[in-house]
Amino acid sequence: GDLQSLSDYERRAERHMPPETWHHIQAGAGAGTSLAANRMQFDRYRLVPRMLTDMQGATTGMELFGLRHAAPILLAPVAYHRLAHPQGELATASAATALDTTMVVSTLSSIPLEDIAQAARAAAVELGRTAPPPLWFQLYVQPDRAYTAELIHRAEAAGYQVLVFTVDASVKRSDFTLPPDVDAANLRGMPRLSQNASAAGGQIVFGTPLLDAAPTWESLAWLRTATKLPIVVKGLLSPHDAKRAVEHGADGIIVSNHGGRVLDGLIPPLDALPAMVEAVEDRIPLLLDSGVRHGTDVLKALALGARAVLIGRPQVHALAVAGMQGVAHMLHILRAELELAMVQTGCARPAAIQRHHLADGS
Amino acid sequence: GDLQSLSDYERRAERHMPPETWHHIQAGAGAGTSLAANRMQFDRYRLVPRMLTDMQGATTGMELFGLRHAAPILLAPVAYHRLAHPQGELATASAATALDTTMVVSTLSSIPLEDIAQAARAAAVELGRTAPPPLWFQLYVQPDRAYTAELIHRAEAAGYQVLVFTVDASVKRSDFTLPPDVDAANLRGMPRLSQNASAAGGQIVFGTPLLDAAPTWESLAWLRTATKLPIVVKGLLSPHDAKRAVEHGADGIIVSNHGGRVLDGLIPPLDALPAMVEAVEDRIPLLLDSGVRHGTDVLKALALGARAVLIGRPQVHALAVAGMQGVAHMLHILRAELELAMVQTGCARPAAIQRHHLADGS
Amino acid sequence: GDLQSLSDYERRAERHMPPETWHHIQAGAGAGTSLAANRMQFDRYRLVPRMLTDMQGATTGMELFGLRHAAPILLAPVAYHRLAHPQGELATASAATALDTTMVVSTLSSIPLEDIAQAARAAAVELGRTAPPPLWFQLYVQPDRAYTAELIHRAEAAGYQVLVFTVDASVKRSDFTLPPDVDAANLRGMPRLSQNASAAGGQIVFGTPLLDAAPTWESLAWLRTATKLPIVVKGLLSPHDAKRAVEHGADGIIVSNHGGRVLDGLIPPLDALPAMVEAVEDRIPLLLDSGVRHGTDVLKALALGARAVLIGRPQVHALAVAGMQGVAHMLHILRAELELAMVQTGCARPAAIQRHHLADGS
Amino acid sequence: GDLQSLSDYERRAERHMPPETWHHIQAGAGAGTSLAANRMQFDRYRLVPRMLTDMQGATTGMELFGLRHAAPILLAPVAYHRLAHPQGELATASAATALDTTMVVSTLSSIPLEDIAQAARAAAVELGRTAPPPLWFQLYVQPDRAYTAELIHRAEAAGYQVLVFTVDASVKRSDFTLPPDVDAANLRGMPRLSQNASAAGGQIVFGTPLLDAAPTWESLAWLRTATKLPIVVKGLLSPHDAKRAVEHGADGIIVSNHGGRVLDGLIPPLDALPAMVEAVEDRIPLLLDSGVRHGTDVLKALALGARAVLIGRPQVHALAVAGMQGVAHMLHILRAELELAMVQTGCARPAAIQRHHLADGS
Ligand SMILES: Cc1cc2nc3c(=O)[nH]c(=O)nc-3n(C[C@H](O)[C@H](O)[C@H](O)COP(=O)(O)O)c2cc1C
Ligand SMILES: Cc1cc2nc3c(=O)[nH]c(=O)nc-3n(C[C@H](O)[C@H](O)[C@H](O)COP(=O)(O)O)c2cc1C
Ligand SMILES: Cc1cc2nc3c(=O)[nH]c(=O)nc-3n(C[C@H](O)[C@H](O)[C@H](O)COP(=O)(O)O)c2cc1C
Ligand SMILES: Cc1cc2nc3c(=O)[nH]c(=O)nc-3n(C[C@H](O)[C@H](O)[C@H](O)COP(=O)(O)O)c2cc1C
Repeated sequence: GDLQSLSDYERRAERHMPPETWHHIQAGAGAGTSLAANRMQFDRYRLVPRMLTDMQGATTGMELFGLRHAAPILLAPVAYHRLAHPQGELATASAATALDTTMVVSTLSSIPLEDIAQAARAAAVELGRTAPPPLWFQLYVQPDRAYTAELIHRAEAAGYQVLVFTVDASVKRSDFTLPPDVDAANLRGMPRLSQNASAAGGQIVFGTPLLDAAPTWESLAWLRTATKLPIVVKGLLSPHDAKRAVEHGADGIIVSNHGGRVLDGLIPPLDALPAMVEAVEDRIPLLLDSGVRHGTDVLKALALGARAVLIGRPQVHALAVAGMQGVAHMLHILRAELELAMVQTGCARPAAIQRHHLADGS
Repeated sequence: GDLQSLSDYERRAERHMPPETWHHIQAGAGAGTSLAANRMQFDRYRLVPRMLTDMQGATTGMELFGLRHAAPILLAPVAYHRLAHPQGELATASAATALDTTMVVSTLSSIPLEDIAQAARAAAVELGRTAPPPLWFQLYVQPDRAYTAELIHRAEAAGYQVLVFTVDASVKRSDFTLPPDVDAANLRGMPRLSQNASAAGGQIVFGTPLLDAAPTWESLAWLRTATKLPIVVKGLLSPHDAKRAVEHGADGIIVSNHGGRVLDGLIPPLDALPAMVEAVEDRIPLLLDSGVRHGTDVLKALALGARAVLIGRPQVHALAVAGMQGVAHMLHILRAELELAMVQTGCARPAAIQRHHLADGS
Repeated sequence: GDLQSLSDYERRAERHMPPETWHHIQAGAGAGTSLAANRMQFDRYRLVPRMLTDMQGATTGMELFGLRHAAPILLAPVAYHRLAHPQGELATASAATALDTTMVVSTLSSIPLEDIAQAARAAAVELGRTAPPPLWFQLYVQPDRAYTAELIHRAEAAGYQVLVFTVDASVKRSDFTLPPDVDAANLRGMPRLSQNASAAGGQIVFGTPLLDAAPTWESLAWLRTATKLPIVVKGLLSPHDAKRAVEHGADGIIVSNHGGRVLDGLIPPLDALPAMVEAVEDRIPLLLDSGVRHGTDVLKALALGARAVLIGRPQVHALAVAGMQGVAHMLHILRAELELAMVQTGCARPAAIQRHHLADGS
Repeated sequence: GDLQSLSDYERRAERHMPPETWHHIQAGAGAGTSLAANRMQFDRYRLVPRMLTDMQGATTGMELFGLRHAAPILLAPVAYHRLAHPQGELATASAATALDTTMVVSTLSSIPLEDIAQAARAAAVELGRTAPPPLWFQLYVQPDRAYTAELIHRAEAAGYQVLVFTVDASVKRSDFTLPPDVDAANLRGMPRLSQNASAAGGQIVFGTPLLDAAPTWESLAWLRTATKLPIVVKGLLSPHDAKRAVEHGADGIIVSNHGGRVLDGLIPPLDALPAMVEAVEDRIPLLLDSGVRHGTDVLKALALGARAVLIGRPQVHALAVAGMQGVAHMLHILRAELELAMVQTGCARPAAIQRHHLADGS
């Protein structure tokens, strides 16, 4: 009844988590200006509708990397779903399958990646479908390259069809401690670097093992040789980096400031998008996340050149409030909102959404 | 005494309605950013007055579609006036007649359109006038074309002189249920489409009967053949659509985002107006609604190229607070404010209001 | 002790007046957007200082209409000072004399204009000065031209040296009723027009006697013949009107929106100023009022081309809080603030204040 | 634990001081618009990161006036540290030494400048370092030139290596009275000018002895002859003054509005910076203070052309909360934040921080 928008889920979710977990999931870095800017970036634009369009045969369906996706909305990689609900990623994967939505599974999932893929397939069978929607796997490059390679091969073997290489969160400050029943299920047994190692030469962050293990362009070059899957680089915000990613063989980019979680003051993705679109010249698709909460946000991102968007926190909110059904309902709301927005603007398919559908707000 | 502005009526009205009705009337779609923008669009402009003008013989009178209107202010079509007052549209029509103001009667009126026209004529007689001001009828195209044609002929027969074709509200989400004593009086007996029919092919809104019955440009072409009355298309916001409307034989356009009620994020009409004025090149008049609350708002809309404005919610507020007399008083306030604004800016007639009377605010 | 700025006086003054009087003095017209804009217009600009300037011999003194003024700050005409303090304009005139500040006496003063001039001379004598600062008289043109002429001659005879012709407040709505012990002392015996006379032809304001008696450009032409005093037109905001004023023989203009009291939404004077400066091409001086509260506001107005500013409400606040001494102290604060601002920006005289001392804020 | 940012220290500090002291330290001049603008100036810019950069050998180290500084962050001159903590500047100097940070000691220090230098050296010895970081001395030119010369020679003799000549605070209003146990330790025995001396010729500030003793460009010329130390002029905000400073032989400039403490409405330094950078054409380095609170603020200032920044109030906050350790911790936080920001933007040294790392916010 009264859960009619993603914000309704957000408001409700707080009661379903311990305060530290809630803060860990919600908070932005530093003073939170990027977090706020992520929402404001969408409000800057107004929709200019085209009315009286014939919408016979309208669809939200689209293709990415040769794979059919039911809508230009994906679930962003989010660590540790079991923080929000005991069934964790299993519930999310089932809900995503029910709504024909691609889930990007995190390296830091709290359920082994193989089990998540299996849950998606099982849900598809139950719904009488031949297959679940494409599954993507998000990779945090690990200090040990052999270990990283093994992780990639596990994902390939489990049927993941796209690899998301996250590059913006290698050095990140956090006080949050995982509860005892939640862990990084995919990384069990892997030795991890301490974030508290002291630095050399009077510097504080520079020179720490953590920073030394951070990915570089060379890591992308290596990754290109380590897999045949399409590689999507997640976390770029400059046209310069977009060009370099193309040069290094990336198949796509997720324009993202990590939901405002890493460095406060980062440009919001929607502001960064146009210059990046220009830089890549249609050679590879650009996706976008950070702050997407309404169907009209999706439409605005597409009008500015994104091919699809991802949503992060809303999956956690819905999962905390109502588990699998919560995520399914949340996705249903967002999809319905997108279709309504497309109707009102006369767009019968995602590619019909163009810059002329937007005006700069005052 | 203390009811001196339209906002005073708005503040007061809440007490006169059940909360759900109040919410139904007031609320904007989604997060309400368009609703807020509808007010802010007016505050963006500042008035640049011309002082010491001779105002002998000044008038607010003007012509639209060959019909004399006492002022460039009309009552926008608003469904179900009986939600606000037991006399509903009868009270509104009498008040409008008293203030020589055109009322646009909604397809969804809670009193039959014939009775409303009759109430207007009766009020004119009582005031010793030869005729009431011109009455306009707002049309929602119905799924059944024959039924729609019949509705038009009823309006013509009852003396309505202009037809307003609303195109922006065919697919709209609402939880509001009419109370038992209020109904769509004009549509009694007409089978209506369920808004909950399930869609085909995994889509949610696309492919529903509701959407399939939505009007298209073809509907306008048909309408042009179905009546001789001037047709005003209500709910356009882009220059592209303005041009198409002209091509399809429309006689006027109401630039409107439906008071922010349909899709959140739509451009406010005042922002859309200049490009539309340019697009139609004076071939047909543009009217504007959404957010008009002050005499200076009217002046600003006219300075930017509108020929007249319509007010929606304020009629409901005044009706709820004080019935017929409330609406008459509210119209008196707004008309007095417009005249004062014209005095201060030295405009002796509506056509004298020009772009140079405005400056962009900071 | 704790009265250190004009805002301190404003905050304090409320306690010293009945609520209706306070509201009458403070309120802006309509929704109060112009009132707020009058303050924001100053905050839009930032000061760009020039440091290390030699300030030997610095002065705030300047000339207007051949008359020496101690600072580019005048007291704006404000009706009925006895609303704030039993001594009314007598107290204000004495304080103004003490601080060597020109007072513009209103047609609607609550003390006869002759007595006010006398109070100023008496204060000068008491301070051992040869003469008080120049006194100006503000004229509201009265419906009866002979009566108006008589008023002018009374002002000339009483020693007023400049005539301010206010043109922006002829038709103004107000509910405020004067208390029994306060009246328009200069207009005793003059028949006044009712503001409630009904209008002709279905209009509300248009065609009323009040509007018919409002001044026009012809009134200014007549005034030019009726006096030899310099005439300053108060209440213009457009370059068009500025040019016409010059053509009609005005000696100066006060760029003003009447403190936001007449029509809500009027452009703030500082926004209007640059185009008006350009329009008059230095032929006559432009003064400015509405919202001036700080020494830096004075500096900003001068940097944008005003030759002096006037302050309205602050005199009423200071008068209500502490009578004559309040006004003197308030003027002292403002003058000290102006001098400090001139020191910090390296301006040793008013004419040194230039556009390059300002930057547009963000 | 819960002191993780400079704002945390600020919030906490209030409890550690009497209200008048707190107000004296925190308050901005006048209405406080400059104080607020000092923070907003940073929020106007968004960071455009460059990811996947190799950060091997990264450093914050840089050179100024031939002296090695560990990071582009200095402690701004702040009077009377003993207001915040009984150990005053001794504690600050020790903490600065521990974090290898340059302290600019104020003329108005509450500990003699010689003792502060001694404390810094002692701390270096204790830490096993050969020398403390460079110490700078801030000069307020005194009415008596011989006395000023003596002050300079004391600073030189005590080992200070750079002279900061503050030019923006000679005439400043303040009600604050020092508590009995705090005084201007360096100026003991020097006769000071009363701020209450009355002015000549009807002016209030102009013509007072205080203003007559204020520094001028001639003072800088004299200073240039009086010392061989590099001279940094503190408190300029216009390109015009920047050029004059270069012409008068200044070795550097601190672009500053004195933390919004002197004249309300002054342009925030970041807004002033680009034009000044252009004016000096790389002939001398520009530093910046006022409002710096985050590592990203440092990065933004450097991207816009500053070579280093100074922080004022945060040292007082940290000193009040936790003495020497507080200041050391606060500096550690800021340095860590800067390094993290450099990592995220791919800048391996201060000089790598460029304009392309910023985008204007909306
Ligand atoms: C609790 C949480 C955990 C996240 N974990 C990951 C992760 O493991 N890998 C990753 O690439 N991004 C991660 N992200 C970032 C998301 O993929 C996404 O970029 C971000 O949440 C989008 O912003 P939104 O939350 O405003 O939709 C995480 C975000 C949140 C809120
Ligand atoms: C309660 C309500 C009912 C409405 N019903 C109709 C309607 O039946 N037909 C129509 O064309 N517009 C309808 N509208 C839209 C109005 O005609 C108009 O576009 C809008 O109210 C203008 O904005 P305002 O309320 O800010 O003045 C309705 C608006 C409200 C508030
Ligand atoms: C209570 C009050 C009475 C006023 N009476 C007059 C008046 O009699 N004649 C006139 O020209 N302006 C009158 N004004 C306008 C002032 O001259 C001036 O334009 C305005 O107050 C300036 O704005 P400020 O109050 O923000 O300084 C009055 C203003 C106030 C607040
Ligand atoms: C309490 C206090 C005392 C100050 N004393 C001096 C001083 O003695 N000499 C000086 O040049 N600047 C002085 N300043 C100004 C600082 O050097 C610096 O310009 C300012 O604090 C920077 O702004 P911030 O506080 O926002 O970082 C003082 C500032 C404060 C807050």
